[in-house]
Amino acid sequence: MMLSEAAAFLREHDDYIVLTHRYPDGDTLGSAYALFYALKAIGKRSKVICGDNIPKKYSYITDKVAFEEFAPQCILAVDVADTKLLGSIEKKYKDKVDLCIDHHGSNVRYAKNLFLEETAAAGEIIYNLIKELGVEVDKNIAECLYTAISTDTGCFKYSNTTSQTLRIAADLLDIGIDKSTINYLMFECRSKAKIMLESLVLESLRFDCDGKCASVFVTSDMIEKSGADDNDLDGMASIPRTIEGVLCGITFRSSDNGFKISVRTNGDLNACSICSELGGGGHPAASGCFVSGTMEQAYEKMVSIVKKYMEE
Amino acid sequence: MMLSEAAAFLREHDDYIVLTHRYPDGDTLGSAYALFYALKAIGKRSKVICGDNIPKKYSYITDKVAFEEFAPQCILAVDVADTKLLGSIEKKYKDKVDLCIDHHGSNVRYAKNLFLEETAAAGEIIYNLIKELGVEVDKNIAECLYTAISTDTGCFKYSNTTSQTLRIAADLLDIGIDKSTINYLMFECRSKAKIMLESLVLESLRFDCDGKCASVFVTSDMIEKSGADDNDLDGMASIPRTIEGVLCGITFRSSDNGFKISVRTNGDLNACSICSELGGGGHPAASGCFVSGTMEQAYEKMVSIVKKYMEE
Repeated sequence: MMLSEAAAFLREHDDYIVLTHRYPDGDTLGSAYALFYALKAIGKRSKVICGDNIPKKYSYITDKVAFEEFAPQCILAVDVADTKLLGSIEKKYKDKVDLCIDHHGSNVRYAKNLFLEETAAAGEIIYNLIKELGVEVDKNIAECLYTAISTDTGCFKYSNTTSQTLRIAADLLDIGIDKSTINYLMFECRSKAKIMLESLVLESLRFDCDGKCASVFVTSDMIEKSGADDNDLDGMASIPRTIEGVLCGITFRSSDNGFKISVRTNGDLNACSICSELGGGGHPAASGCFVSGTMEQAYEKMVSIVKKYMEE
Repeated sequence: MMLSEAAAFLREHDDYIVLTHRYPDGDTLGSAYALFYALKAIGKRSKVICGDNIPKKYSYITDKVAFEEFAPQCILAVDVADTKLLGSIEKKYKDKVDLCIDHHGSNVRYAKNLFLEETAAAGEIIYNLIKELGVEVDKNIAECLYTAISTDTGCFKYSNTTSQTLRIAADLLDIGIDKSTINYLMFECRSKAKIMLESLVLESLRFDCDGKCASVFVTSDMIEKSGADDNDLDGMASIPRTIEGVLCGITFRSSDNGFKISVRTNGDLNACSICSELGGGGHPAASGCFVSGTMEQAYEKMVSIVKKYMEE
């Protein structure tokens, strides 16, 4: 589907459900809520649905909206590359999505219609779609879309950021949103538990391969001691890769009978190849796998594979 | 001076020294080196001078350039609000600056000519000036200016970021610079010593005022144990303020016979008022002071003042 076709689709239907992915982030939520406002502006009813509870840091987006009750006629999904990512609402909706709006090249084409552009954030597509619909981008929409675009680009720091991303963000700032509060909530504010956990995790740091491989551990003990919850675990996987001289950062998170392992690489080292040796996979710079056994066993196994790849 | 006058000034003179401030950062260096390239493009010789050694993370900017030898005829200063900030070269140049190009409202008007705009980064002014000079923004200039603008805005996260900032950055990305490497070097890469120091500093965390005041300590022991140098101390002062629910973050850094104290505040709490009670000062959200005595004495003194302000 093209931009104009997606806009026409939205004009032609009514009474929408807008689905977001599980473990909701700023992009899926901001995009879905911006779409809610835009649909309202063209006289359509809609309701955003997420399979998980929405973390309270997004309440500045969610608390402003009270959805009407209606019988849904059309199902949209935003930033959902695969129905598996719907989580607890997968069964109910997986064969029923009429239009998926997404920016993942890996989208598995589950929806009846797909409007896909490989932008940095789904929020960029929604911005263009709202413009195409002729809807004025007001402060509510701008807040949602700024949240979407900034979170999926690490506040414009990630390599996916393009000049289009920055120009859309500039347009959103011109509308007069309170970006400082959004940036504080999204990028600066950390819970006490998260700070405690980070401190404990950093204590576990080990180096191999002449400092080019760094490993950290996130154990159940650390999680318990810090009082961290699932949201607080966000970002732990990126800690070891950011150390000067490190080409491969590994995070071992204890799990049932073993360790969930995240591998992040700089330069040419392929994280996906490394993880695939243990049945995992992902992207060239960010992949994961599972290793059973004790912490030391998992550590020895991973580091020996990384050493082999470093030597190649 | 207006933009057109500053451009005319640069066209009329020749053989420039471009001064940067001490403790050089991405903005002063990126702006000065961008100006060097622009001056070269209009047939002028120039040389960038800094009173301090330039940290090696900026070598992608500095290593490309070999300055010619010449007898300077005109002295420029970029991003230097006060001659005190010239450091070791203050004596030599303080009365000799012909044109200062700056973005600090607090500029003390020491130069014979001043071109000042209160933009987020000096790099934004240099970008506009280069355009005014009719010089093409090439990859070298774009790398310098992206460094300047991104560092002074915390990669577009700080509240000083405007839509102009983002649009200029978008133009720079369109030139095809390697922003990922710049972002990695400026915002992600941390030395092992810095990581170690952060871990030690986080262990020292204390809360007061029902969690609204958070304090951390940076002691000589921690610095020695981690092997941290002055560059590694960057950013420590912002750690406690970013904790959820914290309105006042205090960092105590041990110094001769006492503690250098940094206070960072959220919301209405005035860091400058707090610090001025102990002879310090600064900005409403970021101030500093010095307290003599032991760690516990300094801590008690500061927290009692913060408590008083919290109650008001």
